Amino acid sequence: MRQLTILGPGLLGGSIGLAARHVKAARRIVVWARRPDAVDQARKFGVADEATDSLDKAVAEAELVVLATPIGAMQALAEKMKPALPDGCIVTDIGSVKYPVVNVLTHALKGKARFVGSHPMAGSEQSGIDASRRDLFQDAVCIVTPREDTDKEALRLVFDFWKTLGCSVATLTPEMHDEIVARVSHLPHVVAAALVNVVCANDSKPLDFAGPGFRDVTRVACGPPEMWTEICMENRDEVGRALDALLDELGKVRSMLKNSDAIELRAMLKRAKHFRDVLRFRARGTADETA
Amino acid sequence: MRQLTILGPGLLGGSIGLAARHVKAARRIVVWARRPDAVDQARKFGVADEATDSLDKAVAEAELVVLATPIGAMQALAEKMKPALPDGCIVTDIGSVKYPVVNVLTHALKGKARFVGSHPMAGSEQSGIDASRRDLFQDAVCIVTPREDTDKEALRLVFDFWKTLGCSVATLTPEMHDEIVARVSHLPHVVAAALVNVVCANDSKPLDFAGPGFRDVTRVACGPPEMWTEICMENRDEVGRALDALLDELGKVRSMLKNSDAIELRAMLKRAKHFRDVLRFRARGTADETA
Repeated sequence: MRQLTILGPGLLGGSIGLAARHVKAARRIVVWARRPDAVDQARKFGVADEATDSLDKAVAEAELVVLATPIGAMQALAEKMKPALPDGCIVTDIGSVKYPVVNVLTHALKGKARFVGSHPMAGSEQSGIDASRRDLFQDAVCIVTPREDTDKEALRLVFDFWKTLGCSVATLTPEMHDEIVARVSHLPHVVAAALVNVVCANDSKPLDFAGPGFRDVTRVACGPPEMWTEICMENRDEVGRALDALLDELGKVRSMLKNSDAIELRAMLKRAKHFRDVLRFRARGTADETA
Repeated sequence: MRQLTILGPGLLGGSIGLAARHVKAARRIVVWARRPDAVDQARKFGVADEATDSLDKAVAEAELVVLATPIGAMQALAEKMKPALPDGCIVTDIGSVKYPVVNVLTHALKGKARFVGSHPMAGSEQSGIDASRRDLFQDAVCIVTPREDTDKEALRLVFDFWKTLGCSVATLTPEMHDEIVARVSHLPHVVAAALVNVVCANDSKPLDFAGPGFRDVTRVACGPPEMWTEICMENRDEVGRALDALLDELGKVRSMLKNSDAIELRAMLKRAKHFRDVLRFRARGTADETA
């Protein structure tokens, strides 16, 4: 690839730059940031060959543009860069919600660039370019979300791009993505936060008695509240449905406790262990799995 | 200490043996197991100086006995070993629920031994002696739970014993223990299991799209269902109250999603991050916290 341009050097944008440089995914890697101090940071951390706050300059020669800003900033950015984009340029994003984002960006770039939605499921409770890592995408799942009218060549290039960065790439429709990710990512985030709030209803004193289990269950609650509010709101129908399913499951547990129904509770815990063990024994061993 | 006797060489019993040998917590360390093959295993893993399936022999010379069996087996074991215990011997346990356990064991051992309840908050989703580690208690929180009538000398010895093994030891009444631990441990376990069941409502396919967040949130769901059923049932009133508080918090989130109330959702996520960051920046850095 001639030139890769990354818009927004946060944790993910910065890590994309580091990973792409490492595997030489493009002959030139350019990063754009809105604020001059973010441009300086991008240079300091070496996440690209070039860093600039000029959007036109950043995208003028791009073959692939990755929108790595918060979801809420993507539409305006797409419209602003559109005139400067080379004809036929391929654009992707890294938003955690796909149906609304893919619709809006496909429409915004129509007649100029070819858009393919992406969601690399990497990151951590940390944020910011200083948390960037060139191995952030190693073995991470990345979901690309073509629509029926998505350009096949663009889809292939974006698919291969994430593969080159080390991702295990899967394809889903934007709708399926939002339904599944509401359950495996957005709901767990909300639940982790709710657990912390229940434990710390009065103060943080009970945290003195928190073991490694509580740490793991609630780690994601350290994620940036702004970003997660945006994600949950953009995907509120699916997150709401997932939450209803969880409230239903927890309601059943409430009854089991009330009725001292050990048999049903054991069956419920067994079912969960049965499924969760699938992940435990899967190739990818994160630190906590192998400890 | 002359002799430490551990009853039940599972993950915790085995790790207590390994840790106690390592720091030379007693001149002699004896482990008792009911099944002969478990006795062989205890020898193989070197968790004690001596391993036996004779309860009388195991406790006859003990200065401190640690009940490390499932909660449900403790009362019968206490009654069975009582005649063989040296007068004034100190007995503790490692059960995750304290109020009923402390009552039952204090009563069962009355007139012979001095009982002090303990709950070392260590372990993992693994179980069994083969998962034992001599550093399992390093920096782990251990809660000891004296009643008003608990012998002060016995309390001091048990407190110091866990400290010697590397624990950060705290004291709570059995009632306070059960209330707090229902929230920081038992509830998160049930919630992690419920999350897995919601994600895998039809099959395990959605797990293909699970990222590191989901892995962390649900890791504890791999724990032994028998043990966790027992724990939740023994502490069902407090777990029920904690679950009610969570259902209330999640019900509010459901309304925020329905009403597109981003302001309230952000406030809820911010509150959680504020408290969870307390743990994140605390001395103890587990793998996931420092990654």
